[in-house]
Parts: sequence; structure tokens; C-alpha cells
Amino acid sequence: MVARLGFDQLGLPTGKRARLRRILYQQGLRNGTTLFLPYDQGLEHGPRDFFANETATDPRYIVRLAIEGGFNGIAIQIGLAEKFYWEYAGEVPLILKLNGKTDIPDDAAPLSPLNATVEEAVALGADAVGYTLYVGTPAQAADFEQFRVVRADAVRLGMPLIVWAYPRGAAITAKGGTDSFYAVDYAARAASELGADMIKVNFPRPQKRSGVRAEYDALFSDEEAIGAVVRSANRSLLLVSGGEKAGDEAMLSKARLTMEAGGTGLIFGRNVWQRSHLEAMRFVSALRAVLAEHPAPERSFGVDQAPAVTVPDSQFVPVD
Amino acid sequence: MVARLGFDQLGLPTGKRARLRRILYQQGLRNGTTLFLPYDQGLEHGPRDFFANETATDPRYIVRLAIEGGFNGIAIQIGLAEKFYWEYAGEVPLILKLNGKTDIPDDAAPLSPLNATVEEAVALGADAVGYTLYVGTPAQAADFEQFRVVRADAVRLGMPLIVWAYPRGAAITAKGGTDSFYAVDYAARAASELGADMIKVNFPRPQKRSGVRAEYDALFSDEEAIGAVVRSANRSLLLVSGGEKAGDEAMLSKARLTMEAGGTGLIFGRNVWQRSHLEAMRFVSALRAVLAEHPAPERSFGVDQAPAVTVPDSQFVPVD
Amino acid sequence: MVARLGFDQLGLPTGKRARLRRILYQQGLRNGTTLFLPYDQGLEHGPRDFFANETATDPRYIVRLAIEGGFNGIAIQIGLAEKFYWEYAGEVPLILKLNGKTDIPDDAAPLSPLNATVEEAVALGADAVGYTLYVGTPAQAADFEQFRVVRADAVRLGMPLIVWAYPRGAAITAKGGTDSFYAVDYAARAASELGADMIKVNFPRPQKRSGVRAEYDALFSDEEAIGAVVRSANRSLLLVSGGEKAGDEAMLSKARLTMEAGGTGLIFGRNVWQRSHLEAMRFVSALRAVLAEHPAPERSFGVDQAPAVTVPDSQFVPVD
Amino acid sequence: MVARLGFDQLGLPTGKRARLRRILYQQGLRNGTTLFLPYDQGLEHGPRDFFANETATDPRYIVRLAIEGGFNGIAIQIGLAEKFYWEYAGEVPLILKLNGKTDIPDDAAPLSPLNATVEEAVALGADAVGYTLYVGTPAQAADFEQFRVVRADAVRLGMPLIVWAYPRGAAITAKGGTDSFYAVDYAARAASELGADMIKVNFPRPQKRSGVRAEYDALFSDEEAIGAVVRSANRSLLLVSGGEKAGDEAMLSKARLTMEAGGTGLIFGRNVWQRSHLEAMRFVSALRAVLAEHPAPERSFGVDQAPAVTVPDSQFVPVD
Amino acid sequence: MVARLGFDQLGLPTGKRARLRRILYQQGLRNGTTLFLPYDQGLEHGPRDFFANETATDPRYIVRLAIEGGFNGIAIQIGLAEKFYWEYAGEVPLILKLNGKTDIPDDAAPLSPLNATVEEAVALGADAVGYTLYVGTPAQAADFEQFRVVRADAVRLGMPLIVWAYPRGAAITAKGGTDSFYAVDYAARAASELGADMIKVNFPRPQKRSGVRAEYDALFSDEEAIGAVVRSANRSLLLVSGGEKAGDEAMLSKARLTMEAGGTGLIFGRNVWQRSHLEAMRFVSALRAVLAEHPAPERSFGVDQAPAVTVPDSQFVPVD
Repeated sequence: MVARLGFDQLGLPTGKRARLRRILYQQGLRNGTTLFLPYDQGLEHGPRDFFANETATDPRYIVRLAIEGGFNGIAIQIGLAEKFYWEYAGEVPLILKLNGKTDIPDDAAPLSPLNATVEEAVALGADAVGYTLYVGTPAQAADFEQFRVVRADAVRLGMPLIVWAYPRGAAITAKGGTDSFYAVDYAARAASELGADMIKVNFPRPQKRSGVRAEYDALFSDEEAIGAVVRSANRSLLLVSGGEKAGDEAMLSKARLTMEAGGTGLIFGRNVWQRSHLEAMRFVSALRAVLAEHPAPERSFGVDQAPAVTVPDSQFVPVD
Repeated sequence: MVARLGFDQLGLPTGKRARLRRILYQQGLRNGTTLFLPYDQGLEHGPRDFFANETATDPRYIVRLAIEGGFNGIAIQIGLAEKFYWEYAGEVPLILKLNGKTDIPDDAAPLSPLNATVEEAVALGADAVGYTLYVGTPAQAADFEQFRVVRADAVRLGMPLIVWAYPRGAAITAKGGTDSFYAVDYAARAASELGADMIKVNFPRPQKRSGVRAEYDALFSDEEAIGAVVRSANRSLLLVSGGEKAGDEAMLSKARLTMEAGGTGLIFGRNVWQRSHLEAMRFVSALRAVLAEHPAPERSFGVDQAPAVTVPDSQFVPVD
Repeated sequence: MVARLGFDQLGLPTGKRARLRRILYQQGLRNGTTLFLPYDQGLEHGPRDFFANETATDPRYIVRLAIEGGFNGIAIQIGLAEKFYWEYAGEVPLILKLNGKTDIPDDAAPLSPLNATVEEAVALGADAVGYTLYVGTPAQAADFEQFRVVRADAVRLGMPLIVWAYPRGAAITAKGGTDSFYAVDYAARAASELGADMIKVNFPRPQKRSGVRAEYDALFSDEEAIGAVVRSANRSLLLVSGGEKAGDEAMLSKARLTMEAGGTGLIFGRNVWQRSHLEAMRFVSALRAVLAEHPAPERSFGVDQAPAVTVPDSQFVPVD
Repeated sequence: MVARLGFDQLGLPTGKRARLRRILYQQGLRNGTTLFLPYDQGLEHGPRDFFANETATDPRYIVRLAIEGGFNGIAIQIGLAEKFYWEYAGEVPLILKLNGKTDIPDDAAPLSPLNATVEEAVALGADAVGYTLYVGTPAQAADFEQFRVVRADAVRLGMPLIVWAYPRGAAITAKGGTDSFYAVDYAARAASELGADMIKVNFPRPQKRSGVRAEYDALFSDEEAIGAVVRSANRSLLLVSGGEKAGDEAMLSKARLTMEAGGTGLIFGRNVWQRSHLEAMRFVSALRAVLAEHPAPERSFGVDQAPAVTVPDSQFVPVD
Repeated sequence: MVARLGFDQLGLPTGKRARLRRILYQQGLRNGTTLFLPYDQGLEHGPRDFFANETATDPRYIVRLAIEGGFNGIAIQIGLAEKFYWEYAGEVPLILKLNGKTDIPDDAAPLSPLNATVEEAVALGADAVGYTLYVGTPAQAADFEQFRVVRADAVRLGMPLIVWAYPRGAAITAKGGTDSFYAVDYAARAASELGADMIKVNFPRPQKRSGVRAEYDALFSDEEAIGAVVRSANRSLLLVSGGEKAGDEAMLSKARLTMEAGGTGLIFGRNVWQRSHLEAMRFVSALRAVLAEHPAPERSFGVDQAPAVTVPDSQFVPVD
């Protein structure tokens, strides 16, 4: 199991620390891990995602689910935040999802437009903001420009920034698809270099090798893949998403591998609310059990918590 | 019949409450329902819409029609608002339609440009603003960006925001058309997640199943469809539009189904002014009769008015 | 002959009134009609328009022509306004044409870019600004956005706004051409709904029926067509342009029909300056004779000057 | 020979007068003519332009050449201005070329992006700014928009604005090419209407008639062509550029025709620095000899200096 | 060997001098040469670049490598600068790379979007900023516009500006490729004219002659090519990059030729960190040995340090 950096070694400015500490150490398991509830699928996919459980159409139900399930935060769009969060404000951290789009038009050059700003997140009492970055999209210039402003605002206002790092677009499709080890690894790195505090990825599938870069067209285990992705993210904390509803054991297995590799947490939506309330609570309990085994230190007490893959200090000598 | 949320449960800030209360409870039937008169067809379709009744070419006639017909508001573009509303200012609420376009160029990737701002609506004494969101348009990134500014201005200035949630564009055409249950339901949800206070949709046609998403390719009644749309809109109040002039009984039937499903009101233009003045007044009386049967409570007096589709409170228990 | 609205019934704010009164009642015939001299063809078509009369190449000649001919204003681009209007500043009202383009590149999706601002018009002492709106252009979103800023600036600074409402672009070509009754009527209405104070159109040709909307594919006289266009413009005063140089009698006939239908005036350029000075003066005298027969009242002295096409007041009764 | 306007008849505001007077009457021949040295070919064409004379690679050499050759100004991009002009600041007027591009990508819809601003020109002590306007480019809307800001800044800061009026793009190619009489004449006029103080054109070639507008498809002499171009430019002073290096006598002939037609000066780069220093000086002397014969009056002492092509004052009589 | 300009002859304003002096004379060899370590390949190429040496995935390792290797600066993106530079702030100069992109989408019209601003570089204590300019890209208008703002901010804030001058895009591919003498020479000149303080190029390959401009389709030695590139850059200091990892001797040879031609330094990334720590240190030592032989004077003590390719002062005489 990988050693984790102390929370005080992440290079975060004061406001980001205050808000992220609230999420990581004053909410949920309070052990430095996270379980987030995303609820923007009504925009991203449409209400069809609620057909499996009509109750989930109601944002009020979802907010209460996040509270009762001990989630570390709920990620919603501004419209729902304005109309539904006031009732439970402060009971569960709000992650304002800043951009989003429908899945109706063609997706060859996707760009997720801004629907809200970091300042609006501050005004609503949010503890983090979310941004979907379509890594590899032909529209990447516009995407990066848009992200830059969000990142700068987040720095200015001390707001933790969670990046949905999603490989997308025609070139990704041609080069192995959205969840290859290559694509996910690149997405995590790009988000890290661009300034994410947390990075949400799909679990990488190293067996998807057709079309990927030569370096990734080799035999990698799931453990190796998720481990590399965590290292690519570095001091940007890694979250793995559930994606479409799948078998519970498969989900829990991904969760375990992620946490063992040094990941910080999980962000599961449809796998939670596309079932009855009681089943949802049972599944959440299982996820929490995984997280409970992987605490991250809040303080490093002076210990040098550099990542494991370094050269021994003794080898660092000035050149002549 | 569906229980309605109290006006005080909608999560509205003060200025929006003041203006929306004026529309819902101090105008027209004063019972929390609405009947709006839209009059931007001269821009959207051209003067051909006035050929059925030349008198309707004259905006002055329309404003007086709205006043005498007891409408809750009239929706017009800035040019007409500037030149015609001064004479009757305050006699009927003004809904300034902020964007709009002609139907002349190709409509595969529609975008309705801004012709006015929320600040100009304030300056003209408007009680609400209207925005056409083309849900599913290939130009959705530009549309959402434009909408974001309008929404933020509306929040800042306390101005209620009514979204014309219209599925449009090549992908919508390919996926079942503009008035399928799938398209209308998605449009209502998207507008809700993006921050509409009221949402105008066309009445969904569940029988249009060719090309829609699998979840919608099933047998749904009109009641089920409009009920789902109202739930997708949630605390964004739902309006149904009349669209092209059609048979009165068909129109009244849609109106009844909408109100029974929990909708807030109607927005009928061509069906009203594409006929003689006396016939228009008769039809308006019939619409008002429907609305009169579906009042919405102005205050909930502490009663928890959560939507019906929730899990019993007793089932909400913290996970272990 | 159609009754005209009083100048005080147009819904104009103070600054626009002051400047427009100067144009309509303190210049030229001083009777509420207008004769404008447009001189931006050097940009729009190139110097070839001056080959018929080389003297017209010289902007100084044109300014003097406008003064001596008793025109109500001269419409020029900023470059000529800066270099030539100072000499005669105040002798004839300046209409600063704010946008314009060459006719060299392909015109399938035309957009006329801004070359000057309303503030610059104020600085130059202009009494109005001009804007070319290409109604129906595939670039309409950009056109409307650009226009919105001009309109808002014009309102803010009390500057009358004259819209060159020109149907243009591939869709217009496909739907009957730029001067069909359908196209001109739509253009007038669009400009009116978007906020024009005056609207310049080409004289509609109702006999052009191929490709137009069904409502317009019928037998209309010239009188009916121009009458409908004036009504579509409503309180935005209608001007008819001369277009390419044509026979004098045909021009005068259009002028008469326009004024009889309730139009406010004429804007003739090439028909004036593409001939010798003496011939130009003779033609101008003939145009002025037409205008002299159609004065518009400066004040309505309390008389209700509502347009003719209304329902009798007695029929406006509240619905039950 | 054509009579010239006095410098005080150009309609220039104070700051532009001060700077332009420095260029025209306090530099070089001090007689109201100009000889400019353009040196942005390293960007526009690449260093290949320096292969004929490697010394010309060095901007320091060029600045000294401009000083010693008695040029009225040197036109360079901001990078060279920042690194090389400080050493000789004030010894020769600086014309900061504000936009520019490489000739590498396809040129069907050219646009020359801004590389510096008028404010930066002021900060560097420039006496004029240069802007390349691609008249007829399919990108004209963007070009004009960009130019508008430059023009407005130049007015605000009293900075003379020299426009490189270059017909370019696919439509120009299809309509007779970049140096036809038609194209050059149109370019001069467009720049004049848009607000240039000086206009740089290539010498028109009236014999290029294939594809041009009908009016230009006739027999014109070089004298007639350049004369028309000067008139199209009007109070915007006309400069003729040398273009690619050509025979000296041909160059001098163009210079003579330009000055005889009323042009203000020459802007010669490659024809000067693509040869040895001594040869360059000899050629410059010959050019200066031409300019010396065509002085323009600094003051008109009350004389009406209107252009020649006017109607006698006696003919300007008010219409009845 | 070429004489070098003194540091005080570069035309730099105060703030740029202070920061650049720190890089050139107070860091590394302190002799006016530079060895930079670029580390944005994780974004530009993805984590695959780290497969040769997994340790290099860790930004903390790289920062320490730069310090221990005596580099003059490390070039990283904002995300890594924020999370990793705080620990070693001030120990090695930070070059904040302001733009960057992934290599996933098609590269026919590349544009490297801004990910950070010069102000953010100031806030992080950077001593220089880096910008990738894709010389020849069909997107050059957008690239130049974006660069202009960066350059202006860098001037305003006294921040040295290093341009990655990379020929790229479909036209470059068609005209001889990205590393031809033609392309590299043009790129250096363009960056210089646009305002770079330092220019990073790939070593030119004069043998690549197919498709290049005629002037470059001749026999040039490597010495001639790099010499011309240094002259094209002029007072913008030239850096040569290592590019993909290649044989050490080939790399060292390029380094020597560059320095002998008057270049200022080297910027080597993959050739350094795609090997073990000890091997990296050995290679760095060899590079430093080359640089040590080519010091550049910090002060010129009044000596005229004009470039060599000038005309003797005696030949500069005023024309008659």
C-alpha cells in the first residue's frame, strides 16, 4: 500500500486548506478520504437516468440522501443549488459544478460551457467547485482558456477545484477510447499540470490497447494502471468515479484498488441513487468500509512526506 | 391531482419573490397560476403571423388585449417595449424577452442572440425576463454561456427568469423531433438545472417514439408525460405554450392536463390574437376557467411542502 | 391616405426627441418628413459608383450638395465625417453610419462590421446614427449581438437610431430575394422589434412571389405592400431608399406611394449624385414636392393618435 | 500637376497635427513629402528577404540607414522597436507597425493580427502607427472590428494612422488580382472612409482588366489610374510602396507619376536595403530628387484649398 | 567564434534586467549562458514521456534535479508551480510556462492556449515566463493576439519573456517540415520581431530542402544555418532545445555549434531526465563544460557591441 502525503504537504493556500479540511477531516469519515455524490446527470444525460428510480428525480431527496449517507459533498449545478440547497445549507458540503452540457448534439469536439462562476459558489457557501475538462477534445484551446479563468478565480477566492478529467472527442475515440490506461493517465496528468486540487477519473482499463500510444500497448495490471494514474496526479488528490451503474462487487473492487494505490476517494452517483433508498444506504456502507481502511494523515509533524518514487537524498549532489 | 409547493418554498431571493408575487398573486386570477401573452412572433416568424388578423400587427392593440383579458404578463422584445409599454406601464406586468431571432436562415444549429439585458428590463419596469434556450443545439456552448450571464444578472437584480426551453437543432430532429416526451422532458430538466424560475415548454407528445432514447420508447399516456415534465422542472414553475393556432378544445385539454399535473400556467399567443377580439376574449375566459380550478398556495404556514415523490422521513437514517 | 402619429406619440426619450426634432422639424421642409443623402457607397461598392459623375468622388462636394439641396441629413462613414464634416459642422445634420463593408468577398452570410461607435457620433455632433442589419443572414446571431450594443448606447446617449433593414444572405436568396414583399415586410418588423427609431427599406416588390412564404404568395398591389410594411414598422418611422439609379418617374412614384402609405421619408443617394449638379437639384426639388404633401404633426394636442387598425375602445372589456 | 491641399486643411486634431507635422515638415526634405523605410519583411516574408544583402538582417543597420538616408520615418514591429530604437530614439521618426503576420499559412482569407497597441506606440515615442488592412478579405468583419479600435485609439491619443491598404484574399484573386486599378482604387477609398490619415498602396496596374468590375474594364493610362486613386483617398494622404525589388528606372517612374498625381510620398524598403550601402544611398538620392519637386504647402493662408474636381460655388444654390 | 553583445546592450527595461541578470549571472555558471530544464512534457505529450524513467513522473524529483544540476531555471506549468515550487522557492529560478496543450487532437492548425498569466508568474516569484508560438499555424491570428497580451504584460511587469518558437501546422508540413533551416530561421525572426527576450528553437537542419522557399534550397552547413538563426534572433537571446532524447554526442555537438554561433544557451529536458539520476548528472556536466567556454559579457564598459554584420561607420554619410 502506498504512503500518503500529509494534508499539510499539498501546497494549498489558506482558503483552500480551510474548505478542503472541512471536506476531508470534518465530514463523512473524517479521515482524509472522500465519498462524493454527483447529481448533474439530469443535465448531462437527461431525466432518463431517473427512470430506474423515480424518486431520484427530486433534488430534495438527493440532498437528504447525501446527508444521511454521510457523504463528503454533493455536486450539483447552480439551478438546483439555488432552489434546493438553502433548506439544508451547511449540513453537507456543496460542490458547485461550474460547467455542464446535454448529450444531445454530436460529441466529436465537446466543450462543457460554464454555467456558473467561482464567485457564485462562494455566495452559495460551497466548499469546492467542479469543472469538466475534456482532455483531448479538438476544442481544447477554448476548454483550457475557460478553465484558466476558473482556476485563477479558485486561487483568488481560496476555493478547492475538482476537475472531472474526461478524455473525449474524435481523437480520443480514434486513439483507444475514453477509458484506456493511456487516456485516463494523460487526463490525470493534464489536470494536474493545469492546476486541479482534486481529479476525478474513470477507472483505467489497461486491456484497452488498440489505438493507444506505443508505451501503453503492453501488459499492465489494473493495480499498475491505477497506481500510475495516482502518480501522474501527484499532489492533486485522485478520485475514481462509478460511471454507469454496474455490479456492486465490481464497483467495490475498483474502489479498493484505487484506495490501495493512494487514491483519496470516490465519487459515485448513479450507482447510489439508481436503486431504492435502503439498497443505496447498504451500498454506501460498503463503500465507507473501504475508505475507512485508507486514512490520510492530516498533519505530517515535520516528517518529509515526499512521494515514494524519488532518488535517495544522498544521490542529490551538485554537479561539478 | 398533484399537491403544489407553497410560493414560499421555492427558494427565491427577495427581489424575485417581490416581482413573481406580483405576477402570481396580484394580477389576473391572483391564485398562483399564470396566463401569459407572448408577442414576439413578428420577429420569430415575421408579419405573416398577423395575416389571420391584421389588427394584431399593432402592438398597441396587443397590450390592451393583455390588460383587458386579465393576463398575468405580456412578453415582448425591447423595441416594442420601448415604444409601446410606456403608455400602459404598470397596467400589466412586462416580461421582457431578452433574446430572439428570425426563422429565415438554416436552423440546424440555432442560437437565439441577446437583444436586451436584464438591466434594461429593470429600467423598463419589467417583472420578469424571458430567454429562449435551444436545448440540444450544436451551438449549446454559446447558448449556455450567454444564458449564464442572463441568469447571474437576474439573480443580482432580483428579476424572475422565464426560460423558453425549446429542443432544437439537427440532433433533436434526428432523435425524435422537438416535441417528443424525451425532448421536452430533457429540456425542462436542463432549464431547471441551469437556473430557470419558470419554464415554458410545448406539451409533450409521448407517441413520438421514433429516434428517442430507449427509456422513452415505451407506452406513456399524455398524463404520464406531462406529469414527468413537471417533476423534471421541480421548483422551476412549469408553463405550457399553445404553439401554432389549433382547435380550442385540444388547447383546453392540454391546459387541463398541465394544471392537473402540477403545472403553474399557460402562455398562449397565436391561439389568442389570431382571431377577432370577441373570439379572443371568449377563449381567454375558457382558459381562465381552467386556471381557476388549480390555485397554488401563497404561504405554506410551516407545512412541509416537499414534492410527493419522496422517501418517508423515517427511512432517512444515517449510515453506520 | 393614412393618418400619422404625432411626434410626441412615438415613445422617444428626451435626447432622441431633441435630435430627431432637429432632423424632422428644424431642417429641410420642417414638416416631419425627411430627405436623407447617403454617401457610403465608396465603401460599400467602391469608387466605381462615382464613374458616372467624377465630382461625386469628392466628399466636400457631397456635403455642400446636402446643404444646398435642403436635405435633412447626410449619412457617411467615420473617416469622411472626421475629415470633411468639420468644415460645415452644424449646417446639415450628420448621420454617422456606424457599420459598413466592401462588396468584394462572398455575400452568402453577410455581416456589416462596426467602424464607429455611438459615442464617436456624439463627439462629432451627429444627430443620428445608422446601422445596417442584414435580416436573415446566417450571421444573424453576431449581427443582433452587435446591434444590441449599438441600440443600448443609442438609448443611453439619446441618439436616434436609423436601421438599414436589408434582407440578405443565402436563405433570403432562396426564399424570394432581397426585395420581395415577404423579405422587406419581415425586415421592417424585425428592425422594429429590435429597437429602430427609423427604418430604411427598399420598396417592396409584391410581384416577386417565387420562394416566399405561403402568406405572401398572393396578389398584392404596390399600395398594399408598402402599406403593410409601414404597419409592420409601426412607431419606427419608415424610409424608402432609392437603390441603384433608375428612371426619375419610377423613383417619384415609389416616393409618392410610400408617403401615402404613411411613410416618413426618403433616402436617395446614387439617384441624386450620379448626375450633374443642376440635374440633381431638379430631381431633389421633385422629391421635396412629394414630401411637402405629407406633413406629420409635431404635437398631437392630447388627441389619441393610436394607429387606425385598432378595435373600438368600447369592445375592450375585461373578461369575466 | 495637381494642386495640393494645405496641411491645415486636412481636418486633423491637434496631436495628429503635431506628430504629422514633425514627419512632413521637420524631417527629411521638410517640404510636406515623405520617404518612409518599412522594415517588417522579416516577419511578413521571413529572413529570406535578407539573403540579397546579409547586412540588412541587422535592425541596427537599418535604423542607421534611415537616419543617414534622411528618411521621414522607419516602420517596424514592436519587438525591434523595443530592442533597437532606444539607441537612436528621436533621431528618426518611429512608425510602429501595429499588426503583421507570416506568409506561411494559406492566404485565402487573410487577417493581420495586432501585435501592439497605439498606447505602446505612444510609450515608445512613435510619431505614427501603421495598420495593414486587407481590403476584400473574407475575414473583413474581423479586420474592420480590429481596425476600429486602432483608429479610435489613434484619435484619442493624437497619433497619425497610416493604413497599408492591401487588396487580398480569394475574392480579390478572382476579381483581377491585388494590384489592378479596380482593387487599388477600392482599397484607397475603403481606407479613407474608415479613417486613415495616410494610405499606402501599391501602384495600380490599369492594364490588369480580367475579372475586374465592368467600370474598370476599359483603357486607362497609368496617369489616369494613379490620379483616380489619389482622389479616392482624398484628404487621406497617399503613399506608394515599392514592393519587390525592381528596376530603378521603373521605380523612379512610379514615384514621379505618383507625385505628379498629387500623392504625398513613397515607402520603399526592399528596393533600398536589398543592395549595398552605397547603392542604397544613390537610389535614395534619386527618390529624394523626385520628392523635392513636389512640395505641399504647410499653411494655406486662408486660401480655399478644396480639391479641383468641384462644382463652381456659383452653382450651389438652395433648392426652392 | 562570434562576438557577443554585452548584457547592457540588449535594450531591456529595469525589471527584465533584474530578473534576467539573476538567471544569467547569479545562477548556474554565472557567465551569461543558460541551461534550462523544461518539464511540461506531461501536458504536451502525456505521462508516456516518463516511462523511460518512472522517477521523472514526480515533479519534486525534477525540481531537486534542477537545483542540484545547477540549472539556470526550470520551466513548468502553473499546476506544478503551485503545488511543488513552494518547497524550494528561490533555490532555482522559476520559468512559468504560460501556455500549453495536449498532443491528442489533430495538429493541422495548432494553438497553444493560455493556462496562466504573467501576473500569476509574478505572484509565484518567477524570473521569466515561457510562451509557445506556433509560427506558421493557420491559427496564427489567434496566436499572435494571445501573445500580444502576454508580451505587453511582461513589459508592464518587467518579466523576461522566453518564446518557444516552433514552426507548426499544415503549411509548415507542406513547406519542408518543422526543423528545416527555412522554418527555424523564420520562427526565430518572427519571435524577435514580435518581442521575445529569449527564443527557444530546435537546431535547424539545412539538409531538409524539399518544399522550402527557394532561398533555402541550397547547400548550407550546420554552422551557417545556426549562425543565420542567431542573427535572425538578434538581440533576442537564442536557446537551442534538445527535443527527443538522442545520442549524447549528437546533442553535445549541437550545443557546441550553437554556442560558437553566438547562442546564449540550452534547454534540455528529456535528454536529461529520461535517464538515471547519475547519468543525468554526468550529461549535465558535459553540457556545462560547453557553456563554460562561451561566456557573455555582463557589461560592455562603453565598448560599442554592435553585431558584426554592419557597415563601417565611415560609410554612413547623410545623403545629399
